[in-house]
Amino acid sequence: MQPTSLDTVLAAFNWRYATKKFDPSRKIPAANWSALEQAMTLAPSSFGLQPWRFVVVNDPQVRAKLREVSYGQPQITDASHMVVFARRTKLNADDIGRHIARIAEVQNIPLASLESTRTMMVGSMTSRADADLNAWAGRQLYIALGFFLSAAALAGIDACPMEGFESPKYDQILRLDREGYQATAVATAGYRAADDAFAGKAKVRFGQEDSIRHV
Amino acid sequence: MQPTSLDTVLAAFNWRYATKKFDPSRKIPAANWSALEQAMTLAPSSFGLQPWRFVVVNDPQVRAKLREVSYGQPQITDASHMVVFARRTKLNADDIGRHIARIAEVQNIPLASLESTRTMMVGSMTSRADADLNAWAGRQLYIALGFFLSAAALAGIDACPMEGFESPKYDQILRLDREGYQATAVATAGYRAADDAFAGKAKVRFGQEDSIRHV
Repeated sequence: MQPTSLDTVLAAFNWRYATKKFDPSRKIPAANWSALEQAMTLAPSSFGLQPWRFVVVNDPQVRAKLREVSYGQPQITDASHMVVFARRTKLNADDIGRHIARIAEVQNIPLASLESTRTMMVGSMTSRADADLNAWAGRQLYIALGFFLSAAALAGIDACPMEGFESPKYDQILRLDREGYQATAVATAGYRAADDAFAGKAKVRFGQEDSIRHV
Repeated sequence: MQPTSLDTVLAAFNWRYATKKFDPSRKIPAANWSALEQAMTLAPSSFGLQPWRFVVVNDPQVRAKLREVSYGQPQITDASHMVVFARRTKLNADDIGRHIARIAEVQNIPLASLESTRTMMVGSMTSRADADLNAWAGRQLYIALGFFLSAAALAGIDACPMEGFESPKYDQILRLDREGYQATAVATAGYRAADDAFAGKAKVRFGQEDSIRHV
């Protein structure tokens, strides 16, 4: 693995901003989009459980419907691509079993050798209250959101992370509720319009002395 | 901004793994660590509110104490660096006021021109139940965790994201509770030991057809 300099990484993180106006004529090349899909699935999660589903919405009619329940925000229809980050609600022992089976498959080891791991994970996760488990899944999901946004920025692809939408209506439109998932964030991605007024604004962050404490 | 190829990004994301055994003799150079600190503060958050604090723990005695309440996991003391990701609990109107004041300062605009933005944010955030607000802050925090882990991986720096610690005890030891923050995740960072058995294991992720749906 050839390291990238942290100056390059910081330049990308400084370059990105929550794009409010996309150029609807510019599309992310298919190979790049495919790489961004891989980037989000490579995000780590607690116990590796990946309590998430990513819904990439390409159908213009569905995008139009989603925009209606996203306070009309134009990114939903104008961005080249859009992905809904959905968390697993009420993760259960079957989800853990599925993960354990996947470990056995990928690492080519006997399922039986993972029994104590499975029992430990089931004990740890199912002892949590539903609300805690749901909050936990939401946090893991946002690591994937971070990986997606990082990867896009590095590649010079604009994106806008969004929470301003009616989540239960997304769940209905995308049939996420019946599958046990909950739309929690959206990322639209593509290329900024030349006249997006937000592109030129200085990035606002608290000073490092306010955000970081050294002990 | 010079884009980085997505092949390079994916190579880094595939290279990284949750490092279980660090080489205690290898330290991250100060300039690189400083860049990683910047990387996490550059993460986006809902409304830009940055409901987080990052506690970088360098004091070996404090690290030893934290290890005791982290199920003895050796990364806590052996990694070159360690950062505690803490979320803001019960974000309030003062936090929003502080953010608004920072916008005015950074973008050099009159505070009064941001009054409607402030009112909107206060209305949106303070209408939420405490548990929701707390869960929301936790999710934002994990975007920053994602930015940190991405940046480290790209630079060839190993890291281990961890939730396996007694959060209330961290809050006491680091005096986070009295400041209105809650330790939620830890990232240890440094360089893998040559004999970390986990380094050679195949990365386990569900197939893309299981994680991603196209509509």
